[in-house]
Amino acid sequence: MEKSTIYLDHAATSWPKPPAVTEAVMQAMLNDAANPGRGSHAMAVRASRILFDARKQLGKLFNIKNPNDIAFASNTTMALNQAIKGWLKSGDHVIATSVEHNSVRRPLYALEQKIGIQVTYIEADERGNIKLDDVAKAIRPNTTLVIVNHSSNLLGTIMPVADIAEMTKKYGIKLLVDAAQSAGILPIDVKAMGIDMLAFPGHKGLLGPQGTGGLYIDPELELEPLLHGGTGSQSEALEQPRVRPDRYEAGTQNTPGIAGLRMGVQHVWNESVQSIHAKEWSLSQRLMEGLQRIPGIRLLGPALGEQRTGIVAFDAEGIDPSELSFILDQHYNIAVRAGFHCTPLAHACAGTSATGAVRASVGIYTTEAEVDALADAMQEITSQYRA
Amino acid sequence: MEKSTIYLDHAATSWPKPPAVTEAVMQAMLNDAANPGRGSHAMAVRASRILFDARKQLGKLFNIKNPNDIAFASNTTMALNQAIKGWLKSGDHVIATSVEHNSVRRPLYALEQKIGIQVTYIEADERGNIKLDDVAKAIRPNTTLVIVNHSSNLLGTIMPVADIAEMTKKYGIKLLVDAAQSAGILPIDVKAMGIDMLAFPGHKGLLGPQGTGGLYIDPELELEPLLHGGTGSQSEALEQPRVRPDRYEAGTQNTPGIAGLRMGVQHVWNESVQSIHAKEWSLSQRLMEGLQRIPGIRLLGPALGEQRTGIVAFDAEGIDPSELSFILDQHYNIAVRAGFHCTPLAHACAGTSATGAVRASVGIYTTEAEVDALADAMQEITSQYRA
Repeated sequence: MEKSTIYLDHAATSWPKPPAVTEAVMQAMLNDAANPGRGSHAMAVRASRILFDARKQLGKLFNIKNPNDIAFASNTTMALNQAIKGWLKSGDHVIATSVEHNSVRRPLYALEQKIGIQVTYIEADERGNIKLDDVAKAIRPNTTLVIVNHSSNLLGTIMPVADIAEMTKKYGIKLLVDAAQSAGILPIDVKAMGIDMLAFPGHKGLLGPQGTGGLYIDPELELEPLLHGGTGSQSEALEQPRVRPDRYEAGTQNTPGIAGLRMGVQHVWNESVQSIHAKEWSLSQRLMEGLQRIPGIRLLGPALGEQRTGIVAFDAEGIDPSELSFILDQHYNIAVRAGFHCTPLAHACAGTSATGAVRASVGIYTTEAEVDALADAMQEITSQYRA
Repeated sequence: MEKSTIYLDHAATSWPKPPAVTEAVMQAMLNDAANPGRGSHAMAVRASRILFDARKQLGKLFNIKNPNDIAFASNTTMALNQAIKGWLKSGDHVIATSVEHNSVRRPLYALEQKIGIQVTYIEADERGNIKLDDVAKAIRPNTTLVIVNHSSNLLGTIMPVADIAEMTKKYGIKLLVDAAQSAGILPIDVKAMGIDMLAFPGHKGLLGPQGTGGLYIDPELELEPLLHGGTGSQSEALEQPRVRPDRYEAGTQNTPGIAGLRMGVQHVWNESVQSIHAKEWSLSQRLMEGLQRIPGIRLLGPALGEQRTGIVAFDAEGIDPSELSFILDQHYNIAVRAGFHCTPLAHACAGTSATGAVRASVGIYTTEAEVDALADAMQEITSQYRA
């Protein structure tokens, strides 16, 4: 990567990683990456400790009492599949929102087809907000799960998770939160927010490497494992062991990746999520201010001054978003993402279904100069198109 | 890791990795690990190319015509779960062997309970061999799948895959091969051997990092995806896209891990699987010769001189295998694995069900001096126990 690249695609994966993350991956590969939980020799014990310590760090960040209630997964999609397919039974009713990612919509659709569940999608408004009342109205006697993303991957809108949880608790309904765009980016406290299951990526706001992620599962919940297989424990049993985290972690874990994730979470903890969020919010505001001065540009999601994450999506009148992102990449060395971002219904809400949108997303290392560069580039491109 | 550690646990995970592997992981994290397939900017394109090139290398190694018929997975267990749960339907009958790993037995047991499949386990003899005739006899009209490991993770026995395939083809039954202990260790040619699905780890014989693996799926087979979610393609569709490899690769892939795997596979290709196998076989013979001179030691698996992989499992009269591995680790700095190795039925065949066994397994960097050190240590330990 040339130093001059302006990377504004943090919502897809964060880059660069803190040097301690890369270093930890390297060290684990060189010194510790025996098979964790699959042997008692010194190196296997060190590998197990890496996993345990990463779990502890994650527990601290999300206020999870017992780190063993966190199961590692290779990405958020796997964590969401474990939660959704592990919890829902034939005949269950689920409530989700129209701004969910395909990693929620597609598993739900697959279960609708396969075992006959029912799904209600609450319509979000143009800015990505839902009405609590709509959730309440959607509840049926057979509703067993509400799924909501903590923050939309297109609009940056922040969902009222704690308020939703208050309602679901009343009805004995479980709440699954997709933290793909919020883990390490917005404060998360599973206890205070009433979250029963939390699916999170390791490689976005938590600053770890790709190939990592996880699912927190409330100790009172019992899921059918997504993967059945060896756990290094109770080898003689045909059933997947009940003990956590083994029950939800069949097969060899990604020790080097998790070693990196551990350092990423530590970095987030040291910086504090509050200050990361404050910084990213302020960058998003600066970018929005720069973009909204440009004729023909329409910003998606919450208005200037409102709460949001560091995602700023927009389109420009008369220019295809794919072409726009291509020009930004080729001529300005600015990396953004164009298209549908795996969330077609959110585009329907925002009125961008036909062509998608351009999404810029900031990260912990993004500077004001970089977001200014994007606004300046957009100014130049749109004025050339108008000419 | 102190230099003096004698690592004989390659069947759990290979270590150390070739320097090019660690270097590639590092370089991918530093320079290329944007989200592959999720953007068109230069770094995302580089990430996609890493995945594609790794697929090509794997295709070359296994004689797979179209690299897109390989789906990455985070480990062999995930690949086996995809194959087993994606193929089997209610009422199907499956044939497997008594030396299969829990990553085969547990998914099968879960499907027996959940959707009502039938499973027949062919009994292997004490050395891990099965009779082809037993497979033939087990076939029923509703048999749709035969599952066999290419090589046992306890006994090192090599299964007659091509002969089994010849039989399954005749009956229109599909063949799933668990290559956990053979990918990069024994020659594999999916075409010549008649393999319909091949599940393999990235972090064992292929010398890649943990967190990698994959499944080859014959182009004529259609599986139900294990994971549903975003693929960066056909975002507007509710169904998982049909196009491969997207169909079986929902969510962000492990780019740095796969970058490492690519170099691992290249290393294997350059050394040639044939010569790796020859070297490991000769080390296994040397170790067996050393161990069988020691009174009270019983070797499991194929006899001296017979074909096998580099796995040598044994027990010592009157000494618990766990204690043995502990002593080897603490006093000799030799890393082996004790216990059941997630394969309880194989222990039943071998007559080691009560206490398990010690498993030593060699790798590409193992030296004669190292296997001699294990034999010498066992000599010392057993003579002390006898005294």
